[in-house]
Amino acid sequence: MSALSWPRAVDIREVGPRDGLQIETPISTEAKSRLLDALIATGVGRIEATAFVSPRAVPAMADAAEIAGYIGGLGPGGPEWSALVASPNGARRATEAGFRTIEYVVSAAEGHSRANARRGTEQATEAVAEVAEVVHGVGGRLEVIIATAWDCPFDGPTEPARTVGVARRAIELGADQLCLGDTIGTTSPARVVALLDAVGAVADGRPLGAHFHNTRGMGIANALAAVQAGVTQLDASVGGLGGCPFAPGASGNIATEELVYLLDDAGVETGVDLEAVLHAAALARDLVGHPLESDLFRAGGRNRPRG
Amino acid sequence: MSALSWPRAVDIREVGPRDGLQIETPISTEAKSRLLDALIATGVGRIEATAFVSPRAVPAMADAAEIAGYIGGLGPGGPEWSALVASPNGARRATEAGFRTIEYVVSAAEGHSRANARRGTEQATEAVAEVAEVVHGVGGRLEVIIATAWDCPFDGPTEPARTVGVARRAIELGADQLCLGDTIGTTSPARVVALLDAVGAVADGRPLGAHFHNTRGMGIANALAAVQAGVTQLDASVGGLGGCPFAPGASGNIATEELVYLLDDAGVETGVDLEAVLHAAALARDLVGHPLESDLFRAGGRNRPRG
Repeated sequence: MSALSWPRAVDIREVGPRDGLQIETPISTEAKSRLLDALIATGVGRIEATAFVSPRAVPAMADAAEIAGYIGGLGPGGPEWSALVASPNGARRATEAGFRTIEYVVSAAEGHSRANARRGTEQATEAVAEVAEVVHGVGGRLEVIIATAWDCPFDGPTEPARTVGVARRAIELGADQLCLGDTIGTTSPARVVALLDAVGAVADGRPLGAHFHNTRGMGIANALAAVQAGVTQLDASVGGLGGCPFAPGASGNIATEELVYLLDDAGVETGVDLEAVLHAAALARDLVGHPLESDLFRAGGRNRPRG
Repeated sequence: MSALSWPRAVDIREVGPRDGLQIETPISTEAKSRLLDALIATGVGRIEATAFVSPRAVPAMADAAEIAGYIGGLGPGGPEWSALVASPNGARRATEAGFRTIEYVVSAAEGHSRANARRGTEQATEAVAEVAEVVHGVGGRLEVIIATAWDCPFDGPTEPARTVGVARRAIELGADQLCLGDTIGTTSPARVVALLDAVGAVADGRPLGAHFHNTRGMGIANALAAVQAGVTQLDASVGGLGGCPFAPGASGNIATEELVYLLDDAGVETGVDLEAVLHAAALARDLVGHPLESDLFRAGGRNRPRG
């Protein structure tokens, strides 16, 4: 048998418009709509469009309802759109605006949960029930994203049993799908496989995705490890958008174009056109007004000679 | 069985002093000696110290004999030192200067071979015989590095049969060891495994290493793939030194600290101390006078919070 095994297809979720832009100086709704158009043109199957969260805490997402309106005007077909929420109230706003795929975030680490959502992990997890009621009430689908699944910027490593416990409880309370987030970009392939295996064992057949950051250079290797562990739902951000503005040079989300490059070469279907992603990345760079972190975007495609 | 399999140990070769510095504005021999000291302190088992090549073509390596003298004065113990050569004459100079592990480069792609060594692949390959005679004549060990093993900046993708043919012939002519180089940083994990398997089949039991660049963000994923394919000899460069000065922002060699991070978490022995590598990277950054490409170095260790 070969040293690596590959699935027939991987379902990429483009998170640039939300996770990528949320830490940027806010750009206009019109500019965002141009980016959404460019991302639709890549062929990606899922796009995280915005977040219904506090506009004071995340000013870049203050136009969530307007973005929903823009998407609503696009007509049928196209990708599956999702919105991120941090509370039942956010879920109400998102579903009222028309979203039917809702991502609700719970931090597995107590420190990050309290800093990010002003409540502990248990309270945030128990709220899955109310969020699920809202989402299922409109015939929607609820994904629970478990942030700081591996490590926390305040608490250090997250005990795997904590993350597994959140996963099990989230499913009991109505999550249709789970995603593990390496929020601070510190995990690595061996740990990726171990935690995905452990969470997969309690996921009761629900789809399990993963969300990686390239902060310490492990992002694409972690995606590779996740795929080897059987995960076929991966988040990525055009151009690697999502670097932290307070840590200059620190990479953000794994870049969509790099993930597609990895999978294309392995014959894994993504439905995503690499050149179209590079085109969208160029637009994203122009819109945010600074260089992007993606190595592939900076270096160009395979056959462009270096120096 | 687990989705990833890991060897007991991986033998890292630090190539910063040669591959990393060769494209930099030359730094003094004294500065290089300080970097060598810092790299010795990391515990790494092998260090590529310099290259015996044309000082006109590579002015940064013009002090190869002086570097040999510095290493000669260090006394017994320490890492295995190697020098890169591009011709039998270079091998003579390197062995006369005291090196006993010699790396001889052959480009599998015709275009790169002619541009880089001013002769075709076949002629460069046949010269392995003379290089081996020189190296074995002093009781040394010859590693043949096959550059552009996957892709060439001039010819595009390298036909795998070409790379396999060079490997087979190099062993016939006396190579004790092989290394495949992704010279322009374009390969990806699926192609890494395929070519390593093909070359491994003709390597006649000789050790087979790999040398990756992170130019398109695949570097650490490629290293992971190589390890999955059974390779336990990997090149890496402190701080990711080796970015091309004519392609701003394009990453160079995979960073030693990122490779160690990957392997440490998997329980794979390297003998390398991560903190010591980060210390050496800080020195390297100060010596070359510009930021380094390593994401891990820029972001800091696991528990340093972002933002």
